[in-house]
Amino acid sequence: MLATLASEQLDDLALGATLLGTGGGGDPFLGTLMARQALESCGAVEVVSAEALDPSALVVPLAMIGAPTVIVEKIPNGQEFVRVVQALGQYLGKDVAAVMPIEVGGVNTLVPIAAAAELRLPLVDADGMRRAFPQLEHTVLTLAGIPATPIALADEKGNLVVFETTDNPMAEKLVRSVVVAMGGSAVLACYPLTAEQVREHCIPGSISYALEVGERLDAVQRGEPDAIRGLLRVTHGKQIFAGKIIDLDRQTTLGFARGTVVLEHIDDPTRTLRIEFQNENLVALEDGLVRASVPDLICVVDAETAKPITTEGLSFGQRVHVLVLPCAEKWRAPAGLELVGPRAFGYDIDYVALTDEVPA
Amino acid sequence: MLATLASEQLDDLALGATLLGTGGGGDPFLGTLMARQALESCGAVEVVSAEALDPSALVVPLAMIGAPTVIVEKIPNGQEFVRVVQALGQYLGKDVAAVMPIEVGGVNTLVPIAAAAELRLPLVDADGMRRAFPQLEHTVLTLAGIPATPIALADEKGNLVVFETTDNPMAEKLVRSVVVAMGGSAVLACYPLTAEQVREHCIPGSISYALEVGERLDAVQRGEPDAIRGLLRVTHGKQIFAGKIIDLDRQTTLGFARGTVVLEHIDDPTRTLRIEFQNENLVALEDGLVRASVPDLICVVDAETAKPITTEGLSFGQRVHVLVLPCAEKWRAPAGLELVGPRAFGYDIDYVALTDEVPA
Repeated sequence: MLATLASEQLDDLALGATLLGTGGGGDPFLGTLMARQALESCGAVEVVSAEALDPSALVVPLAMIGAPTVIVEKIPNGQEFVRVVQALGQYLGKDVAAVMPIEVGGVNTLVPIAAAAELRLPLVDADGMRRAFPQLEHTVLTLAGIPATPIALADEKGNLVVFETTDNPMAEKLVRSVVVAMGGSAVLACYPLTAEQVREHCIPGSISYALEVGERLDAVQRGEPDAIRGLLRVTHGKQIFAGKIIDLDRQTTLGFARGTVVLEHIDDPTRTLRIEFQNENLVALEDGLVRASVPDLICVVDAETAKPITTEGLSFGQRVHVLVLPCAEKWRAPAGLELVGPRAFGYDIDYVALTDEVPA
Repeated sequence: MLATLASEQLDDLALGATLLGTGGGGDPFLGTLMARQALESCGAVEVVSAEALDPSALVVPLAMIGAPTVIVEKIPNGQEFVRVVQALGQYLGKDVAAVMPIEVGGVNTLVPIAAAAELRLPLVDADGMRRAFPQLEHTVLTLAGIPATPIALADEKGNLVVFETTDNPMAEKLVRSVVVAMGGSAVLACYPLTAEQVREHCIPGSISYALEVGERLDAVQRGEPDAIRGLLRVTHGKQIFAGKIIDLDRQTTLGFARGTVVLEHIDDPTRTLRIEFQNENLVALEDGLVRASVPDLICVVDAETAKPITTEGLSFGQRVHVLVLPCAEKWRAPAGLELVGPRAFGYDIDYVALTDEVPA
């Protein structure tokens, strides 16, 4: 397990985070810049497990929220991270012992590292998703009945809003309305937890996992022999398709990038794979058969460079590989599938666990 | 000056509040019911001047916010009033010494009375508008550079949001977005003040004023001789027109009731008066000449019954009198006219103070 995070590890971590973004999650580029600057000016961040903390210690997860396209253009000034964590501690009348990502996947993998460095606090190696999801209530903490609030939300201009809501979907609704009024993106501290709650309910080792995924994918990109096998072994993933993009329909509506991409198999033009996405890739169907679906991770990578391709980066004629990585185990329980399974996103299909039966 | 407020005074106060709503402000009916119930179960409310309190004592203004049409249908459960006042005190780490209306005009004249009774706190006889205005930043406190935040906002379901913003228009923007997400109406505690700030910057005696206006108007309605003269004397107001409605154009857009009403003079059909409104009546023009404008109060009352008519209650053929009451003095300073003069509402005209030159 990781003991510290330093500047040199950020590129691999960002690469892993991009893959775990499953086509969405927000580009980690900006988060990497912020984390690098913070690590270089404040020193390496101590990474701890929840078990290493006093069970009653306050752990504060934090993240950016908003349309990924806006996040990239409306750059945080860095003080928001410090402010939301401190505001939440103050609201609760407790000292913050550590910070944590709520989402390891996309930009929000990197954001808590910058905050940990600035605040000189340890970073807990855990999260609430181990992939990217579009909404605040899409966490294993919701499954455990843990409220997302109090939440502290801040923008780069100095506005701060604290929420206490009756349930997590209401938190998503109220927070989202303020984010839109703030101009489309903001920073939040949410789901305040005791270290004991982190240990009991969060997904452990998410940051280590993202870093290992990134290192393995980097090896693939560098052309190391058998590197793809190594990536699939550590993730228990599979390559389910190799094809080129023959159709692409993409719309940005209500703050979501929704669409469909169709791939024709590279060796067998009679085979096609259709991937449906809403910010993240959600379902992959071959001849009406579900090959993979949310909450498993459907990852599209460039066939030549092994670079993960976001839903925004898809283009006609691209040759790609489709990898599927199994989600964290907690998501496969019935309540998990109810919260983030295909039906939660409007697809009238059942979740099908990854199997070996159909070739790539 | 008032010393206490009891249930028997509520009808006159509500009548005065309706006139000071200048066509908008939200129907005081619901506020009256809530205030009556609170006064009957908790006893009369002590009414104090800011001078009677310790200069450093914390005074919390509170109000309902939202579309007036929704406020009437989405009934508060009463606990929101207590909750927002207590939440704001707690956020500031201070005991609340008294509550206050921020707006004396419409429903928000009555709401703080219910809160004062429930909380067993005195009510300060002052406000920030002495009429109704549509937005949070439309207060004499904004003129004095006093922030509207921290604000505590709550709905009837148990959701609570605390805001700290960089300026008062931003407070309006963020609060409004949450009110819409909450379903269109909510309760807030805003502009936390010391008693000294109330004394220096608020409009004193607003509740007494509304009550006296209500008593005088009630006398008019009961047909007491010379009662209308009495009403105009205490308000320094004038009747500027007596006519019947010959044209009415009204739309509800973006949460505002916007429109125009045209009156033909009752004795001289060649004379017409046009009133433009956006929730409240804002400008009154005769032959292109400004007869009255915001921030002065343009009040339409039924010619027979002297009942104030809201912009929603206007109808073709109604015979009405148009009364104009001068606004509180603080609004007539250049900064006041910039914040709430005709140009602030999009009318390309200058404010003209009420004069005697044109007959009613």
